[in-house]
Amino acid sequence: MHPFDEAVRLEALPDGRWRGRTLESYWNMVSPFGGVTAAIALNGILLQSDRQGDPIALTVNYAAPMQQGDFEVGVRLTRANRSTQHWAVEIRQGANAEVMVNAIAVLAVRRDTWGFTEAVRPPAVSAAESRRFRPLTAMRWPAMYDVRYARGEVRTDSPDSLSYSWIQDAEPRAVDFLSLTAYCDTFAPRLFFRRSTFVPIGTVSLNIYFHVSADELARHGSEPIFGVAQGQVAHRGYFDQQAQLWGRQDRLLATTQQIVWYKE
Amino acid sequence: MHPFDEAVRLEALPDGRWRGRTLESYWNMVSPFGGVTAAIALNGILLQSDRQGDPIALTVNYAAPMQQGDFEVGVRLTRANRSTQHWAVEIRQGANAEVMVNAIAVLAVRRDTWGFTEAVRPPAVSAAESRRFRPLTAMRWPAMYDVRYARGEVRTDSPDSLSYSWIQDAEPRAVDFLSLTAYCDTFAPRLFFRRSTFVPIGTVSLNIYFHVSADELARHGSEPIFGVAQGQVAHRGYFDQQAQLWGRQDRLLATTQQIVWYKE
Repeated sequence: MHPFDEAVRLEALPDGRWRGRTLESYWNMVSPFGGVTAAIALNGILLQSDRQGDPIALTVNYAAPMQQGDFEVGVRLTRANRSTQHWAVEIRQGANAEVMVNAIAVLAVRRDTWGFTEAVRPPAVSAAESRRFRPLTAMRWPAMYDVRYARGEVRTDSPDSLSYSWIQDAEPRAVDFLSLTAYCDTFAPRLFFRRSTFVPIGTVSLNIYFHVSADELARHGSEPIFGVAQGQVAHRGYFDQQAQLWGRQDRLLATTQQIVWYKE
Repeated sequence: MHPFDEAVRLEALPDGRWRGRTLESYWNMVSPFGGVTAAIALNGILLQSDRQGDPIALTVNYAAPMQQGDFEVGVRLTRANRSTQHWAVEIRQGANAEVMVNAIAVLAVRRDTWGFTEAVRPPAVSAAESRRFRPLTAMRWPAMYDVRYARGEVRTDSPDSLSYSWIQDAEPRAVDFLSLTAYCDTFAPRLFFRRSTFVPIGTVSLNIYFHVSADELARHGSEPIFGVAQGQVAHRGYFDQQAQLWGRQDRLLATTQQIVWYKE
């Protein structure tokens, strides 16, 4: 079993909830890598027997740092119509089953329509010519990915936070909605491009819009995803990040944004 | 009382929930203007006696079109620590109290920190020199706002969907988190910049990051907000929109994104 599949694995409990367990290999600084946590929330939805359609929008709010060990996932269908489903997820942990994560999502059955891609994928050097990401601090999860930067470097007091990165699982794995969700959180924190001093940070909310159906995504395979990320503002304790995740043939697979707490 | 305050007004029920009533003057095509609905969800949080801090992140999922009449708002504090609160909101309606909207939010007490604004406000002609927005179809809510476009026009088959608009309440009102939330949904749907034929559309999820505290926002007063909006992709039934809301002295007040269903 691929370690990512092990990390997002959920076991059905008799009462309808699901149980998972944090994996040390995806550990961040004080909690699991947020990308895996977001993928676990989505997996809770995808495992539902009455689930219909593909993910369109996912928002994950990180309420408290998850602890090492077991956790429980509660999933609720809040509303559905013929082609759209609205879901709410809570990940709980500890003796008092406190909420560590709450998330909401929209799923839908996609139809063929007119469309356009207005975003333009910027030119960049290949993954082979890009620099392997070196995190600022000792963390386990970066070793589970092969992230290489074609533009942007942390700790360089750059005038901007724009980065281009090639992203794939260190051990090859065909991309799906779960791994794409995790990829959305692999971008180095924007603050550290602009500033070389380390300060504690933590994502409080992650938002993802998916722009492909499952079959379209499956066609991508296990090649690296190309990520473009930039921050717009850092003000009084919170900075943002926007990113695009591009697949083969200049297909925009997902767009994502997050807001991140920083200490000073 | 300003009509917007009337539209977002909630009355406490004995069981802890809140009751509101849709206002015809903010009616959209088949449901109330989504910006007001988002503001109602946020208002449910701001009215809580144990609420602490300012909104940082808000995600509103539109689960079903709200009907004319009364609705009930349920607000739940899912998790809190010393400086951060996580909230969940549901707006319900009808005999079976079905979920029409579900939302999650992060609030926090902001501290002074180092910061930067990387986004650049583009130059534009003044509000006086801009074109008043003319919606494609008969809707009530646009008359409640004074929205003028300095760049971009719907129904022109433009090569891009980038627009600059000046936004204010038609009847002047000092901006606060509630009206800023509503402003985030005043942008004409990106699809209609690229395409002149009308098709049914509907926002399914709206995400807002706030980049100011209440006292900083209060300093803006009732002058127009400058909005920059653009879509990145429209594919198989869903298109996105990203926007920045700028205040006086080039201050980035909020950034927002939404994903919108379209029929064909």
